[in-house]
Amino acid sequence: MTSRKRATNSFKDLGFAKPEPHRIHRQGFPEAIYCPGKTEDQIRKIFAELLVGPGPVIATRIDPRVARGLVIEFPGAHYYEAARLVIAKAIYRKRGQPIYVVTGGTADVPVAEEAALTADALGRRIVRIFDVGVAGIHRLLVHQGTLQKAGAIVVCAGMEGALGSVVGGLASCPVIAVPTSVGYGAHFNGIAPLLTMLNSCASNVSVVNIDNGFGAGVIASLISK
Amino acid sequence: MTSRKRATNSFKDLGFAKPEPHRIHRQGFPEAIYCPGKTEDQIRKIFAELLVGPGPVIATRIDPRVARGLVIEFPGAHYYEAARLVIAKAIYRKRGQPIYVVTGGTADVPVAEEAALTADALGRRIVRIFDVGVAGIHRLLVHQGTLQKAGAIVVCAGMEGALGSVVGGLASCPVIAVPTSVGYGAHFNGIAPLLTMLNSCASNVSVVNIDNGFGAGVIASLISK
Amino acid sequence: MTSRKRATNSFKDLGFAKPEPHRIHRQGFPEAIYCPGKTEDQIRKIFAELLVGPGPVIATRIDPRVARGLVIEFPGAHYYEAARLVIAKAIYRKRGQPIYVVTGGTADVPVAEEAALTADALGRRIVRIFDVGVAGIHRLLVHQGTLQKAGAIVVCAGMEGALGSVVGGLASCPVIAVPTSVGYGAHFNGIAPLLTMLNSCASNVSVVNIDNGFGAGVIASLISK
Amino acid sequence: MTSRKRATNSFKDLGFAKPEPHRIHRQGFPEAIYCPGKTEDQIRKIFAELLVGPGPVIATRIDPRVARGLVIEFPGAHYYEAARLVIAKAIYRKRGQPIYVVTGGTADVPVAEEAALTADALGRRIVRIFDVGVAGIHRLLVHQGTLQKAGAIVVCAGMEGALGSVVGGLASCPVIAVPTSVGYGAHFNGIAPLLTMLNSCASNVSVVNIDNGFGAGVIASLISK
Amino acid sequence: MTSRKRATNSFKDLGFAKPEPHRIHRQGFPEAIYCPGKTEDQIRKIFAELLVGPGPVIATRIDPRVARGLVIEFPGAHYYEAARLVIAKAIYRKRGQPIYVVTGGTADVPVAEEAALTADALGRRIVRIFDVGVAGIHRLLVHQGTLQKAGAIVVCAGMEGALGSVVGGLASCPVIAVPTSVGYGAHFNGIAPLLTMLNSCASNVSVVNIDNGFGAGVIASLISK
Amino acid sequence: MTSRKRATNSFKDLGFAKPEPHRIHRQGFPEAIYCPGKTEDQIRKIFAELLVGPGPVIATRIDPRVARGLVIEFPGAHYYEAARLVIAKAIYRKRGQPIYVVTGGTADVPVAEEAALTADALGRRIVRIFDVGVAGIHRLLVHQGTLQKAGAIVVCAGMEGALGSVVGGLASCPVIAVPTSVGYGAHFNGIAPLLTMLNSCASNVSVVNIDNGFGAGVIASLISK
Amino acid sequence: MTSRKRATNSFKDLGFAKPEPHRIHRQGFPEAIYCPGKTEDQIRKIFAELLVGPGPVIATRIDPRVARGLVIEFPGAHYYEAARLVIAKAIYRKRGQPIYVVTGGTADVPVAEEAALTADALGRRIVRIFDVGVAGIHRLLVHQGTLQKAGAIVVCAGMEGALGSVVGGLASCPVIAVPTSVGYGAHFNGIAPLLTMLNSCASNVSVVNIDNGFGAGVIASLISK
Amino acid sequence: MTSRKRATNSFKDLGFAKPEPHRIHRQGFPEAIYCPGKTEDQIRKIFAELLVGPGPVIATRIDPRVARGLVIEFPGAHYYEAARLVIAKAIYRKRGQPIYVVTGGTADVPVAEEAALTADALGRRIVRIFDVGVAGIHRLLVHQGTLQKAGAIVVCAGMEGALGSVVGGLASCPVIAVPTSVGYGAHFNGIAPLLTMLNSCASNVSVVNIDNGFGAGVIASLISK
Repeated sequence: MTSRKRATNSFKDLGFAKPEPHRIHRQGFPEAIYCPGKTEDQIRKIFAELLVGPGPVIATRIDPRVARGLVIEFPGAHYYEAARLVIAKAIYRKRGQPIYVVTGGTADVPVAEEAALTADALGRRIVRIFDVGVAGIHRLLVHQGTLQKAGAIVVCAGMEGALGSVVGGLASCPVIAVPTSVGYGAHFNGIAPLLTMLNSCASNVSVVNIDNGFGAGVIASLISK
Repeated sequence: MTSRKRATNSFKDLGFAKPEPHRIHRQGFPEAIYCPGKTEDQIRKIFAELLVGPGPVIATRIDPRVARGLVIEFPGAHYYEAARLVIAKAIYRKRGQPIYVVTGGTADVPVAEEAALTADALGRRIVRIFDVGVAGIHRLLVHQGTLQKAGAIVVCAGMEGALGSVVGGLASCPVIAVPTSVGYGAHFNGIAPLLTMLNSCASNVSVVNIDNGFGAGVIASLISK
Repeated sequence: MTSRKRATNSFKDLGFAKPEPHRIHRQGFPEAIYCPGKTEDQIRKIFAELLVGPGPVIATRIDPRVARGLVIEFPGAHYYEAARLVIAKAIYRKRGQPIYVVTGGTADVPVAEEAALTADALGRRIVRIFDVGVAGIHRLLVHQGTLQKAGAIVVCAGMEGALGSVVGGLASCPVIAVPTSVGYGAHFNGIAPLLTMLNSCASNVSVVNIDNGFGAGVIASLISK
Repeated sequence: MTSRKRATNSFKDLGFAKPEPHRIHRQGFPEAIYCPGKTEDQIRKIFAELLVGPGPVIATRIDPRVARGLVIEFPGAHYYEAARLVIAKAIYRKRGQPIYVVTGGTADVPVAEEAALTADALGRRIVRIFDVGVAGIHRLLVHQGTLQKAGAIVVCAGMEGALGSVVGGLASCPVIAVPTSVGYGAHFNGIAPLLTMLNSCASNVSVVNIDNGFGAGVIASLISK
Repeated sequence: MTSRKRATNSFKDLGFAKPEPHRIHRQGFPEAIYCPGKTEDQIRKIFAELLVGPGPVIATRIDPRVARGLVIEFPGAHYYEAARLVIAKAIYRKRGQPIYVVTGGTADVPVAEEAALTADALGRRIVRIFDVGVAGIHRLLVHQGTLQKAGAIVVCAGMEGALGSVVGGLASCPVIAVPTSVGYGAHFNGIAPLLTMLNSCASNVSVVNIDNGFGAGVIASLISK
Repeated sequence: MTSRKRATNSFKDLGFAKPEPHRIHRQGFPEAIYCPGKTEDQIRKIFAELLVGPGPVIATRIDPRVARGLVIEFPGAHYYEAARLVIAKAIYRKRGQPIYVVTGGTADVPVAEEAALTADALGRRIVRIFDVGVAGIHRLLVHQGTLQKAGAIVVCAGMEGALGSVVGGLASCPVIAVPTSVGYGAHFNGIAPLLTMLNSCASNVSVVNIDNGFGAGVIASLISK
Repeated sequence: MTSRKRATNSFKDLGFAKPEPHRIHRQGFPEAIYCPGKTEDQIRKIFAELLVGPGPVIATRIDPRVARGLVIEFPGAHYYEAARLVIAKAIYRKRGQPIYVVTGGTADVPVAEEAALTADALGRRIVRIFDVGVAGIHRLLVHQGTLQKAGAIVVCAGMEGALGSVVGGLASCPVIAVPTSVGYGAHFNGIAPLLTMLNSCASNVSVVNIDNGFGAGVIASLISK
Repeated sequence: MTSRKRATNSFKDLGFAKPEPHRIHRQGFPEAIYCPGKTEDQIRKIFAELLVGPGPVIATRIDPRVARGLVIEFPGAHYYEAARLVIAKAIYRKRGQPIYVVTGGTADVPVAEEAALTADALGRRIVRIFDVGVAGIHRLLVHQGTLQKAGAIVVCAGMEGALGSVVGGLASCPVIAVPTSVGYGAHFNGIAPLLTMLNSCASNVSVVNIDNGFGAGVIASLISK
């Protein structure tokens, strides 16, 4: 186990992993721990190593049992169950234009919370507008005016995912669309809204992977600084 | 070549085809000639045979050269180039609630015209609302009130096809969504709007095949009678 | 938590959801609760809110345990286990031409019941014809005459889904085809019958999502009014 | 260029190809020349080499220009334009139960002819029943009785391909289903009927590749001997 | 519950199902009970009804618990666990040329047994050759001579499924290829060998659905009579 | 043909299209003309109508012949052949941090130019770094320092599209990844790099549709203002 | 049960399997036991039979319970849990240039260990470099010099799989890329990195199936001998 | 236009391209020019720049017209029409074990020649065995002995691509499998043999992209040195 330090390029070699605690200095956002496929022991060791840096330290898609172990071992860490996140050393001083996080339905809320809590940990202000899908579009239109105040908008939608384009057509900032795996049948676990969003006729919409709330939160934070 | 007649089940055996001129008596809509893969001579002979019935006689996706031959040979036939239709014996007496035919963009108009002209030939009244896609949704919302008068609505949309759900969320009649092949890249020649429409969060939306304006026109006519 | 009321556009803002109890006044069919991805508590609160409206109130794809809780809490609600529905405030006065609900096999019955019970709740008369798939098509042909009396036909079929086209070729009303996930191998959980139905050579067939009995029930009800 | 002969396993080494003129002795059906991707010169040399054997010699999917060159160079060869076949040394003495070749529509006829002419060349009797797709299933049912006389049935169908299952449900012999590329949109050049046929609820249906009339003709001939 | 009898077209209407006990008289093979999606009670009632006919009665993909109930209730029924079959009234008098059932590997044996036991129940002689995949093709080649005696060959193979073509290139009878779901990764639960078999360069190979041993057994029996 | 004006929501109704000349006031970027599927006459009329607004006016994927007609009719319009753009009324005063446009190879340049010229027309400064794909990654690494000055980076890459992640791992601003259709075989016209980019292990990467240089240019401009 | 011996082509016929203990003499690598779909008893009998040969004997993707039974029954066998391997008779004398096994992340380690332990058992020297994915490419570049000493490199990567191309662009030996199923959403269980690797712009990269560490280990061993 | 030289990492910056003439010193194989999507002028300039290095210089998938221009401008360059290659500065001194290039059919020869000529230019000895597909496997088995002399084997096969596994099962060296786009229907332009080869039950087979003869030639050369 050796430690390599070259300016901002430092990383720690744990053998099974090479965490980079100061990535936020290098890139403006931190390395996160994507938990699936890692053992509890590996997660714990990487989490400890990342805490050496300035934070925030974020573990995503974490198993409830592992999460509860982490918050006991590291008292500053918080567990957000619906969002499947453990976060430590969040940035408390908020700045920048608010980020709006919008969902098509109630079942999209966990992904939306992953985005919202990530951006919050990165020091951004968040406004949540949930369950405004196009089956009752008047629920979205009452917010049409305030959407203009957003620095960036994250839209989380499953089913047909039309909300991405609709919000794109109303907004004057970049929209990050997150297709969710909420749906059935020809939804194919998120392919339907993914394609919808990639083909958006509104030109200010870009897309991240299905259910990737974390990435959307990072990108919105980089935009709305 | 023999002719079989059993009540409404009559058909003519041409060897290569068995046209059914009186299908409209049996089903309320006529047999159409789907032209691709048929020779000019085959199309001409089937067209002639169907003219024996009460009509309308409709040839779809017809090649311009073949179409021009048909309208010369059968003076009552009309050629609609953008819609790729030749129609004879259209029903002139219109009845039923109007059918609204709506498109997301200008490039969807040919498919929309296939639907509109089919329903018109079947004796329905048509209202056209074109280029009201969700990139500028206020263009659709000015029509929100009149949409309530529709007996059925046909929505033709390419790109992400979000218009199907959005109209579904505003309408109080069945919506027949037609995904079009207008788009590029991850559009996959219409798969993107097809999936969008199949996953519509508005429950009054059913779907036909990509670019199937003819089928949408038939179904809307059966509904709005 | 605020309540917004603008004519028929009213909805209740619960934060995680914005239910619309009077959607049936606006669109002719009610908002349903799609249960997957919602917590028991969320389902219960939305159900209670929708009961403020005229009904019917329909929860789809509901978990048995959650369903049993609902019918205890809301005595007017009924649980239909095979169809995975809880329904309250069904319309008892039936009207319109009967809706035929047809299946290819026995395993398609749960989806068919979802469609039938939905249309029944919306005040339609239902005729059920089950297990008449094309492996023994004479079982369908004995019903050929009575099919002419249908105002709309819902066809639920898995395996190859050929029944959609076959019924389409016999009927004189719109056919709503519901591909089911019944099958294996190259069935791909319903893609095979979905494609079959989208490519129907009978022109009066439109399609809804795989296993979407609810949507088919709504559309058939809107047609057969 | 050397020639290797070991009993029935002989073949000729032309460098770019190793034709096997006596495959019919080894397997009961001859090697055919699949023309796409071969130069005219290569096709001509392989054709000449296969003529050394007992025949039949069959070139499939042949370009019209190349075909016309072949029939000039080899006077015993016949060109069937719609079926894209050149055949020499067909077996004139027919035997076995008749093979029925059935199509859903007129546009499926070229594939059907490829099957029919192949089986004919292999010495089988052929009955053709064309354009009996399920949009008007009574056209098929008039043949229900005679289908019982078939030794094997080849069903060629595009669009949704439901005819494969329907014929399978009526027949008492093996049915070889050939999906055709006739269709559009969600047909995907034959995938839709391919999946339909693979999922047939009639158990006597097996499937060959899209548009593979030749293979179906060979298999039907091996069955109906 | 009514019973309809028209010559061989009789069936019993159980409401949820319409079994046809004499299908073997009509088609030469019996109706089978595809168990997934049916309740135990439904399976038991259909099984009882089919026992009215001449048999064989075959329930496929049956759950072990349900199977054990059946063999207790119906003493003549046998349960074959690996093949997931319950069979009653098998035909004991065997006739026709032997059917060869061949597998690529050991994991393909359950599907192969489904085919073998089905054909056995239909009165055919079976020869089994297991684990002769192309990774060690000499294991197959030692059987090259005896393969010529087959009336039909069923090849069950997962992984890349090359065995279908290889056996096709050696045999002089029809080969029914059954892709199996044995594999991982880019195997896609059987799509890889399915495509392999559909594209076979040997022309005597036709294909059934992934893991469809039953269908292969039926077709081989119809061929090798 | 009527004109509707409601504050910034004005649009012109041309029947076949409803252009919105002042969309840049409403959203910060203008409506563009997506040319495929539109007739020359339609393009000309929409172009003329959009020129009423403040611009820029951008026609994308334009046919060379149509483009040459436009620049003759509208002298202020410029045609960029490789990028398939016609642009009029570009914003000449540049502001904001520079946008870097990077390509994997030479064949990606046309898409990159579509992005670069769009952002330039919207008043941004552009830095181009072409042909720095990962087959020779040292070509990219010489630019590692200057990439830190970017306000936003557009990465256009075909083949495997790895450049999106690699640049994402080096940058401290949002990266908009554009998969291109440059490749062959299992590239599937851009699906391979599309999936690569959607699965980027660098969290600051979002994605637009295959070959959608225009959208990437718009989004980069909105970010880097 | 008969045993056939012809030079190196010997195999043992166990009925359900035909193991080939001396395949390493015939091909330079041994037959392995792919465990899924085999019963414990079958695995045990094949393992015993392969032990007759010179080894190594390798069982892949083995269930923990079965593995523990094997190492008890065959004391020379070792179980590697993360790699899901049981290995006996590994070659202890190592030779050839070292094989580098590289991973993008920590979750790819089990697949990497399958490759490393396989090559080790075949008598190769292994160097492991784990968690050097392109999100922090400087972690890989510190190894750039030593990579030149590799005889072959195995790259195991999930997510977008860009590491395959990046290593390919740095190496001067063949790179065997193993896409892993580590990822989510549009990763499709490994399709995304599979396509990435197949489209590598570095020409020295070839690919094996998703998660196929065993195959990669065999091929690297054959190259680096 | 600037030139950067850092040891073996030198490259030339042409603006639209950054060719690396000495890549063969860095990696053991040269940079090739993938021609599709490049203009004639770009190809010519890159070709000229690469000629500064030691060679070989290889342009792949080149248009015939462009190729003829190159061989006129650069007299040492040769054009191989079937293989679509222009090659200059091939290595004349051959070394290493021979590379076998094998095809399933005649139509696979152009891809095979791309591989063979690439490896030849890199200084390897080539043995060609064409048209030995599994429809007549005895044509391959006559070469079984000589295959043992190969240092590496390239197998090019379309249709079902079974030849990859079959050769893998006979060989004792690495096999590089190249799926070709030769086929139709469910072949999907090479997906069928690609999947076949990725799922090979022979463990010594790795795969390159569809029709990627160049890559296979490079890899075989690196192995067989």
